Amino acid sequence: MRSNTMNSEEILNLLKKVGEGKLSPKAAVGRLRHLPFEDIGFAKVDHHRALRQGYAEVIFGKGKTPAQVAGIVHAMLRQRESRQNILVTRADAKMYATVKRVNRSAKFHPGSGVITIERSKEITGKGTILVVSAGTSDIPVAEEAVLTARMMGNQVEPLYDVGVAGIHRLLEHRSRLTEARVIICIAGMEGALPSVVGGLVGVPVIAVPTSTGYGASFGGVAALLGMLNSCASNVTVVNIDNGFGAACVASCINRL
Amino acid sequence: MRSNTMNSEEILNLLKKVGEGKLSPKAAVGRLRHLPFEDIGFAKVDHHRALRQGYAEVIFGKGKTPAQVAGIVHAMLRQRESRQNILVTRADAKMYATVKRVNRSAKFHPGSGVITIERSKEITGKGTILVVSAGTSDIPVAEEAVLTARMMGNQVEPLYDVGVAGIHRLLEHRSRLTEARVIICIAGMEGALPSVVGGLVGVPVIAVPTSTGYGASFGGVAALLGMLNSCASNVTVVNIDNGFGAACVASCINRL
Amino acid sequence: MRSNTMNSEEILNLLKKVGEGKLSPKAAVGRLRHLPFEDIGFAKVDHHRALRQGYAEVIFGKGKTPAQVAGIVHAMLRQRESRQNILVTRADAKMYATVKRVNRSAKFHPGSGVITIERSKEITGKGTILVVSAGTSDIPVAEEAVLTARMMGNQVEPLYDVGVAGIHRLLEHRSRLTEARVIICIAGMEGALPSVVGGLVGVPVIAVPTSTGYGASFGGVAALLGMLNSCASNVTVVNIDNGFGAACVASCINRL
Amino acid sequence: MRSNTMNSEEILNLLKKVGEGKLSPKAAVGRLRHLPFEDIGFAKVDHHRALRQGYAEVIFGKGKTPAQVAGIVHAMLRQRESRQNILVTRADAKMYATVKRVNRSAKFHPGSGVITIERSKEITGKGTILVVSAGTSDIPVAEEAVLTARMMGNQVEPLYDVGVAGIHRLLEHRSRLTEARVIICIAGMEGALPSVVGGLVGVPVIAVPTSTGYGASFGGVAALLGMLNSCASNVTVVNIDNGFGAACVASCINRL
Amino acid sequence: MRSNTMNSEEILNLLKKVGEGKLSPKAAVGRLRHLPFEDIGFAKVDHHRALRQGYAEVIFGKGKTPAQVAGIVHAMLRQRESRQNILVTRADAKMYATVKRVNRSAKFHPGSGVITIERSKEITGKGTILVVSAGTSDIPVAEEAVLTARMMGNQVEPLYDVGVAGIHRLLEHRSRLTEARVIICIAGMEGALPSVVGGLVGVPVIAVPTSTGYGASFGGVAALLGMLNSCASNVTVVNIDNGFGAACVASCINRL
Amino acid sequence: MRSNTMNSEEILNLLKKVGEGKLSPKAAVGRLRHLPFEDIGFAKVDHHRALRQGYAEVIFGKGKTPAQVAGIVHAMLRQRESRQNILVTRADAKMYATVKRVNRSAKFHPGSGVITIERSKEITGKGTILVVSAGTSDIPVAEEAVLTARMMGNQVEPLYDVGVAGIHRLLEHRSRLTEARVIICIAGMEGALPSVVGGLVGVPVIAVPTSTGYGASFGGVAALLGMLNSCASNVTVVNIDNGFGAACVASCINRL
Amino acid sequence: MRSNTMNSEEILNLLKKVGEGKLSPKAAVGRLRHLPFEDIGFAKVDHHRALRQGYAEVIFGKGKTPAQVAGIVHAMLRQRESRQNILVTRADAKMYATVKRVNRSAKFHPGSGVITIERSKEITGKGTILVVSAGTSDIPVAEEAVLTARMMGNQVEPLYDVGVAGIHRLLEHRSRLTEARVIICIAGMEGALPSVVGGLVGVPVIAVPTSTGYGASFGGVAALLGMLNSCASNVTVVNIDNGFGAACVASCINRL
Amino acid sequence: MRSNTMNSEEILNLLKKVGEGKLSPKAAVGRLRHLPFEDIGFAKVDHHRALRQGYAEVIFGKGKTPAQVAGIVHAMLRQRESRQNILVTRADAKMYATVKRVNRSAKFHPGSGVITIERSKEITGKGTILVVSAGTSDIPVAEEAVLTARMMGNQVEPLYDVGVAGIHRLLEHRSRLTEARVIICIAGMEGALPSVVGGLVGVPVIAVPTSTGYGASFGGVAALLGMLNSCASNVTVVNIDNGFGAACVASCINRL
Repeated sequence: MRSNTMNSEEILNLLKKVGEGKLSPKAAVGRLRHLPFEDIGFAKVDHHRALRQGYAEVIFGKGKTPAQVAGIVHAMLRQRESRQNILVTRADAKMYATVKRVNRSAKFHPGSGVITIERSKEITGKGTILVVSAGTSDIPVAEEAVLTARMMGNQVEPLYDVGVAGIHRLLEHRSRLTEARVIICIAGMEGALPSVVGGLVGVPVIAVPTSTGYGASFGGVAALLGMLNSCASNVTVVNIDNGFGAACVASCINRL
Repeated sequence: MRSNTMNSEEILNLLKKVGEGKLSPKAAVGRLRHLPFEDIGFAKVDHHRALRQGYAEVIFGKGKTPAQVAGIVHAMLRQRESRQNILVTRADAKMYATVKRVNRSAKFHPGSGVITIERSKEITGKGTILVVSAGTSDIPVAEEAVLTARMMGNQVEPLYDVGVAGIHRLLEHRSRLTEARVIICIAGMEGALPSVVGGLVGVPVIAVPTSTGYGASFGGVAALLGMLNSCASNVTVVNIDNGFGAACVASCINRL
Repeated sequence: MRSNTMNSEEILNLLKKVGEGKLSPKAAVGRLRHLPFEDIGFAKVDHHRALRQGYAEVIFGKGKTPAQVAGIVHAMLRQRESRQNILVTRADAKMYATVKRVNRSAKFHPGSGVITIERSKEITGKGTILVVSAGTSDIPVAEEAVLTARMMGNQVEPLYDVGVAGIHRLLEHRSRLTEARVIICIAGMEGALPSVVGGLVGVPVIAVPTSTGYGASFGGVAALLGMLNSCASNVTVVNIDNGFGAACVASCINRL
Repeated sequence: MRSNTMNSEEILNLLKKVGEGKLSPKAAVGRLRHLPFEDIGFAKVDHHRALRQGYAEVIFGKGKTPAQVAGIVHAMLRQRESRQNILVTRADAKMYATVKRVNRSAKFHPGSGVITIERSKEITGKGTILVVSAGTSDIPVAEEAVLTARMMGNQVEPLYDVGVAGIHRLLEHRSRLTEARVIICIAGMEGALPSVVGGLVGVPVIAVPTSTGYGASFGGVAALLGMLNSCASNVTVVNIDNGFGAACVASCINRL
Repeated sequence: MRSNTMNSEEILNLLKKVGEGKLSPKAAVGRLRHLPFEDIGFAKVDHHRALRQGYAEVIFGKGKTPAQVAGIVHAMLRQRESRQNILVTRADAKMYATVKRVNRSAKFHPGSGVITIERSKEITGKGTILVVSAGTSDIPVAEEAVLTARMMGNQVEPLYDVGVAGIHRLLEHRSRLTEARVIICIAGMEGALPSVVGGLVGVPVIAVPTSTGYGASFGGVAALLGMLNSCASNVTVVNIDNGFGAACVASCINRL
Repeated sequence: MRSNTMNSEEILNLLKKVGEGKLSPKAAVGRLRHLPFEDIGFAKVDHHRALRQGYAEVIFGKGKTPAQVAGIVHAMLRQRESRQNILVTRADAKMYATVKRVNRSAKFHPGSGVITIERSKEITGKGTILVVSAGTSDIPVAEEAVLTARMMGNQVEPLYDVGVAGIHRLLEHRSRLTEARVIICIAGMEGALPSVVGGLVGVPVIAVPTSTGYGASFGGVAALLGMLNSCASNVTVVNIDNGFGAACVASCINRL
Repeated sequence: MRSNTMNSEEILNLLKKVGEGKLSPKAAVGRLRHLPFEDIGFAKVDHHRALRQGYAEVIFGKGKTPAQVAGIVHAMLRQRESRQNILVTRADAKMYATVKRVNRSAKFHPGSGVITIERSKEITGKGTILVVSAGTSDIPVAEEAVLTARMMGNQVEPLYDVGVAGIHRLLEHRSRLTEARVIICIAGMEGALPSVVGGLVGVPVIAVPTSTGYGASFGGVAALLGMLNSCASNVTVVNIDNGFGAACVASCINRL
Repeated sequence: MRSNTMNSEEILNLLKKVGEGKLSPKAAVGRLRHLPFEDIGFAKVDHHRALRQGYAEVIFGKGKTPAQVAGIVHAMLRQRESRQNILVTRADAKMYATVKRVNRSAKFHPGSGVITIERSKEITGKGTILVVSAGTSDIPVAEEAVLTARMMGNQVEPLYDVGVAGIHRLLEHRSRLTEARVIICIAGMEGALPSVVGGLVGVPVIAVPTSTGYGASFGGVAALLGMLNSCASNVTVVNIDNGFGAACVASCINRL
C-alpha cells in the first residue's frame, strides 16, 4: 500500500494543475473517479478510530512462531510516541522467553497464556468491570479477560468461584455485583451463571462460555447454548473461551 | 400369548404324568427345557412388579385414534378388582369425548393434554414430590408431571414461575424446597433451574428440559445439555418435555 | 407470596418486642435467621432495580391467549402512577383486537408482531441506538428491536438493506454508523454484517442472527456461528431472531 | 466471606441496641434490610445440608496440579473432627504420589483414576446400590461409580459385562437386580442396557452413557440419546462418563 | 435412448459389411470404439438383473400427483407378459382412488400408505422373513416392510409390540426368531431391539430406525445411532422409516 | 442515496472553484477527503459491473407480498432502455396473477415457482450449460437453474433422471456431458452424482444438493456433505436447493 | 454362572421327588416357577447358536493390555477340540509380540491392526464375498473386513481403488461384481460407491463408511449419511470404520 | 486390468474371423455384447481427458509413507515424454527428504506442506487467478492453493490479510480484484470475506473455509456455513481447508 501522504500529494498535484489551468475541472473529475477512495484519507480515519477506542496493541499468539511474536512486539515498541500497552494472547513460555529479550518489563501469566507489557497505567474506563467466574477451571479464561481489560485502561475486579449450585456464595457478593458498570460472566458446564447474575443487576452482562467440562458439554457448546437462551434480558454472548473478546466489548462499553 | 393359567395347567399336567409314573423325570426335564420360560410364571412375576411399583395404568394417546384409546380404557375398567387410577397422556379433546362416554368420571386437563380417571385416592408415596417450574410456558409439562405423580399415589405440590433470572422468587420458597422428598425441576431456555435447586437441597432432583424457547434453544436441546452438565451432583435428567417420565421416576423413588 | 409490607411489619413487631423487653436480643436473632430473606425487603430492592433500568413493561405474547395478554395489560394500566410504556412482543392480530378494547391508544405493528402502548415519550438513553439490517427479510426482527428500544426511552434510528455483498451501500452511511452510541446489527444467511460494521466503528455492536434463509442456513445457525466467530472485537451476540433482547442490552448500555 | 459467628454477633449487637433503647425498632428494620441475607445464617443451613447428605469430600482432579490436589487433601485432613471419606476423581499417578506423601492410607485405583482416603466404614445408605455395566470398556466408569458410592457410605455391588446382545447373561442375575434398592446402569455404544434393566425392576435406574465405541458413537452421544429415549419409565440419565454423578444421586436416593 | 434392437442391428450391419469385405476388420474396431457401450447390450443385461432380483415394480408416491401415479401403474399393467406385483409406497387415499379406477384389484393399506396390485402369489424367497417391531407407533413402518417383502415373493411374518423394556414378551417368541431366515427389526426411541434380537439369532438382522418419539429422539436419530452402534455383530442398518428398503435387502438375501 | 450525476456535479463545482482560484488546491484536498467515496463514481462502477455480468434482474419472491413483487417488476419495466430479462424466484400463483396484470408476457413455471419476463433472447454465454439431475424430485431445483441460466443469456440443456444407482443411464449421455462448457449437477439423497459426473469431464461442475429424501437426509445435509467431500477435483458446491445460485455462477463462468 | 449340567440335575432331582411321590405336582410347579429360566437350558441353546454361526473367536483389542489379549488367546487355544480361527481386531505391535509368544503361528497385519491365528482353512461360506474399496486410505478398513471374513470361513476377494470419480475403473470389473454372492463396499469422503455398486448387482451390498477425509467429512459422517441415503435399494450400512462388523454380516449371509 | 492394446487386438481377431467367414456377423454381435465396454477404448478417452485438463500429477501425501510417496514420484518422472509438473500435498519434511533423493529439483513449502517438482513453466491458463485470504492463519491453505494453481500452469497472485473487520484494506486493492479472471477466497472464523469480494467483482469466486479459529468455529464449520449462505450470487464453496481443490476448479475455469 502506498503511504497516505503520497496519496494526498498526488491529489494535491492534480488540483494544482487545475489551479494552474493545466487541467480542466471536468477532466480532473474523471481522474479522481478512478483513484481508489482510500487515497483520500481513509486509512487516516481508521487510524483515528484506533486511537479513539483506546485499544491496546494486541497480538494473537497461537499459530505464530516465537520469533514472529517478538518481531511484532519490537515493531510496536519502536513507535515511541505511542504509550499503548502491549498484549499477547494465547502465548506460551517459549514466546515469552523471546519477547523478554526484546523488552525486559514483559510479564508472563502462565494460567491464561497472556504476555503483557505495561507502558501506561492510565485508567480511561469510567467504572469498574467485574469479572465473575463459576468454577476453578474457568479461571484461565477469566484471567485473560481481567488482563485484557486492565491493559485497555479499565479498573477491573475479579470475583471467582461463585457457581450457581452454591447460590449463596454469589448472593453474598451482591453489593460488588451492583457496583460494577459492566460485568463479564464466565462459566462452563451448564452456563447458568449469566442468567442469575443478569437478574441481579441492571448493567450489561457479557457472557463467556468456557470449554470446561466433559461429555455432553461438547467443548463448551452446552454453556454457549445456555447463555444464548438466557432468560435475563441484559445478557449478550461471545465465543467459547473468548475472554479477550469479552474484555474488548466491556472496555468499549466502559468508555461510553 | 396364551393365558398364564393355561401354562400352569400344562406344567401341572406334565408333572401329574410324572407323579403317575407315565413319564420319567428325565423325559420331563427334556420337555420343560423346551417350554418357553414365561409358561412357568414369568408374566405373573411381571404382574407382581406392576403392583409393587404402584404404577397407574397409562396410555400414551399420541398416534392412537379416540376409539383405540377408549377401547383400552374400557378394558382396564373391566378389571374391577383393580382400583388403579387410569391416565391418558398426550390426549386431545376428541379422545376425551370418547373416553367420557366410557366412564363419566373421566376428567380432561387441556393444558397438559392429560385424561385422568381416579379410582383410588390412596397415598402410597412416603413424602411430598415438589414440581418446580421456571416459566409460564413450562406449565403444561409441569402439569403432566403433577397429574402423573398424583395418579400414582403421591402427595404432590406445584411451585411455578420461579426462574433463575429472578432468583429471589425461588429463594423465597426455600422451606418448601427443603421439605420435599423428591423434586421434579422443569425448565426450558437455558435450563439452569435444576442446578440452583440442586444446590439448595439434599434430595434427588429430576430435571425435565422443555421445548420452550426459539432460535438456539433448538427445541429443548439447550436446556437438555445444560441439565446434563449441571454442576449440582444430585441432578438427573429425562427426555425433553417428558413430564410423565419424571413423575414415574419420582414416584418410584418416593416409594423407597 | 405475602406482600412486602406485611413482612416489614412482622419484623417491626419482632423488634418492638425486643424494644419492650418482651424478647431477648439473642432470641430475636434466632427468629430472624429463620425468616426468608425476602421478608426484609428484597422484593423492594428488586422493584428499585426495575425502575433504575427504565425497562418498559414487557409481555411475551407467544403461547398466551388474547384474553391473558389483555388481562396483563389491564393490570399494568391500573398502576396509574407508573408512566412506563407497555410492549407486547410476538403478538398477533387477535391479541391486538383484545388489547385495543382495553386501551384505545394501543398500536399494532404487524411486520414484527409488536403491540405498543406509549405512555411516555421521555428519552432517557444518552445517545442514538442505530439498528442496522442486511436484507429485507431481516426487517421484522429489526422492527422488534427498534420498537423495543424506543419504548425503553431511546433515540433509535433504522438503517436497513445494507448487506455486505453490496458493501458500498453500507460505506455510504459511514457517518451514521460513527455517530451512533450503540449499534444493533441484524443479519441472516452468512451473518457477516456485524464484522464489517464492527470494524468501522468504536462502539459496542450487538449482533442478532435471523432465521432468514434456507438450506444450510439451518434456521439462523449459520448466521449465529458467523457472528460468534466475528473477527471484530467489539461484537457480542444474542439469540436468533431476538430483536427484543438486543434492544434491552442496547438500552441498558445507552443508559450508562 | 466473613465467618458465620461474626454475622450473628453483628445482628446481636444491633438487637442489643434496640433492647437498650439506643435504636428504634423501625431504624433496626432499615439496617437489617441492607445486611446481606447470608449474614443471618444462610451458610449454616448450607453446612447442615452438607452433613445431611453425607457426601464425602470430593476433589475433581482434572485440571489441577498434583500440588494443588495434595494441598486440598491436606486441608481436609486437618478438620480432624470430620470423619468423612476423601475422594479425588479424574486423578493420575503423579497426583497419587503427592497425595500419598500427605496421607499414607491413600489408595489409587488406576482403572478409574480415583484416589480414596477411607476414614469411615460406616454404612449410612439403607439398601444396596447395584452397579451394572455392559462391556469391559465401561468398567472404568463403573469403578468410579462403585468407589464414589462406597465412600459415601453405601453397600455397593458390581455386576459387569452383561450387555444386551447376550441377554441371558443379564437375565441370569435377575435376582440381584430385584434385590437392589437403586441401580446404576452403565453402557456405551447403543446404550440399550438401562431400558432392559429398567423393565426388569421396580426401583430407580440411573443411566450413565460412556464414551466407549467409535465412529457413530460420537464419544457417547449415541448412548446418551438412547438412554434419554428409554422406553422404560424408571430411567433417568446423567452426563457421559459421569460415574461420579450417578453415584451421588444413587447415594442421595439410598438415604431417603 | 434408441431401442436395444436398433443398436444390435447397427452392429449387425457393421459386421455384415466386414463379412462382405466392404469394411476391413481394423476399421470396424475403430467404429465400434466410438459406439456408446450401452448400444451393445448394456440395457439388456440390466433388464436381466431386474428379473433376477425378482423385485416388484415399485413407485415412490410422495411428490407425485395421483394422475402421475395412476399413469405409471397403467403403463406397467400394459406389459401383460410381466406378472410382477405392483407396489406404490408413501401413497395416500387420493392416489388410491385414481389407481383403483385403473385397476380394480388394487388395495390400499392406510396405516403404511401402501397401494398393492397383486398379480402373482408365487413365493420365490427361500425362507421366512420375520418383521419384528417394538412399539405400536412403529407398526406403519413395519407394515410397509411386510407388504414390500410379500409383493417381492417372500413368506413374511409379523411380530409386533415386543419392545426391550418388557424383555419377556420378546423371549416368549424365541422360536419364531430362530426359525426366520432373515429378520427385519423396527424400533424407534432408543432403538435397542436389534441388539437384543441380533444376540438371540444367527441370521442377518436388518435394523430400521423409526421417527417415533419426541424430544431427544430427534426424529429417529437416537434410534439410528443406537442401531449403528449395536453390540450385536449381525446387525446392519437402513435409513430412518425405510421399511421399504429393509424389505428390499431382506428379499435380496432371502433369494440367495 | 443521491444520484450519481449529482455527486459528479458537486465535485465538478469544487474543481471549478479551484480552477477559478476561489479555492486553493490544498483546501480542495481537505474537502474531498470528507466526501463519501461513492460520490466520486462508485455507484457507476457498480452499475458497470451489473452490465458486465449480464445478470438478469432478479427478485427473490419468498417473504414478499404479490403487490410488492409486482411493484418491483413494474419499476424494472419502466427502465425502457434496459432490455434485461426479469426473473422472480420462489414465487407462487398469486404473485404471478399480480405480475401478469403488470406485464402480459410474464410466464409462470409452477414446478420451480419461477416467473419469467423475457425481453431479450440474445445468447451471451460462450458455450452450453448442462443441467444434470438425479431423481424426479430434484427437477424443481433443476428447472430453477435452467430458467435462471436462460434468462441470463445462456444456451442451456437439461439432462434429467440420471442417478448413480443406474449408472448406465448417465454413461449413455457421455457425449452431452463432454460437450458442455459448464455443468450444474443437482442431486438429493446421497449426493453422489457430481463425483461421477466430475470424473467424466474436464469442465467445472457446480453441485447443488437438494432437500429431497427423508430421515437421515436431514433436509439435504447428507447430499451437501457428500458434495463437499467429492473425490472429483473439479466440483464446487452451493447451498441446498439453490438452483438459482448455481445458474448465476455457471453463467458467470460461461461468459469468461 | 452355575454350569448347565448342574441346573438340569436340580430339575431332575425335583422331578424325581415328584416321581417318588415326595412332592406333589402342584408344589413342583410352584418351585419351578421360581427357578431362573436359564437354568433349564438357555445357555445350551446359546452355545448351539455360536456353533451354528461359525463365528471365529474374536477379541476387540483396543482398550485391553497386551497381557490381557494374550491371556484370552491362551484360554481359547486350550479348548483343543475347537478348531475355530482366532482373530484380534484393533491390535498393535506390542499386543502381537505378546500373542506371538503364546502361539507361534500368530500373524500380524499392521495396516488393519489385525492379529490372526488360523486353525482351520475350511470354507463354509457358499459363495464369494467381494470387498470393494474406493481409495487407498480405505484399505485398512477393507483389510479388516477381508481378514475377518476369511477367518470366518469365506472365500474373499478384494477389489481396491475403484472410486466413483473414475467410474471406468469400477465398470471394468463388472464381471467380478456380478459373480460375488455378497459385496462389502467401503468408502470415505462422499461415500458414493455403494450406490453405484448396488445399482450394478442383484446381491446384498453392505456399506462401510470410513473416517477417511478431512473438514466436512466429519470423521466419516458425510460418508455414513451418504450411504444411509443410498438410492440403490440393496444397500445396508454398518458403523464408521467397522470392517469387522461388515464381514460378520456378510459371513452370516454367505452361510444362508 | 488388461492393457487397452490387448483389448483392441481381441476385437480385431474377432472381426478378422468375421472377415474370413469363420464367424457369422450375428454370432460376433453376441460375443461383443459380453465384452466389458472399457475394452473398446474407454480408458483411452479417459486418458485424453487427463491431457485436456492439463492437471499436474498430484499425490495426496497424508497417510502414505515417505517411501510410497517417493516411489510414486519416481514412477511419474520415468514418463519422460510427459512434462507435467509434480505436486505432493499434505506432505512433511520426512517425505521431502526422501523425494529429494529421487529428484534434486524438488522443493518443499513447509507452511502448506506442499512438495513441488517444476518441469514446465508454461502458462496455459488464460487470465490471473487471485488468491485472497483473510487472516495470517489462513495463509497455509492459501499457499496450497497458490502452489497448486501455479503447478497447473496459471498466473497466480496472492492477496493476503484483507479480512472484513478492516474493510478498507480490501477496498484498497479493488483494482487487483477486478483484474482477476477467477478468485479463490480463503477465510476462517465467520467466513464473510467471499460475500464482500463476490459483491465487488463479476467473476467466479471459489470460497475455501479454513479450520482457523476456536470454540464455536467448530473446526471450520462456521466459515463453511457462512460461505454456503453467501448473499453474493457468484460464490461457490469447496471443503474446509481444501486449497488444493479450489485451485483445481479455478484452473479448470481459467482454461475455458
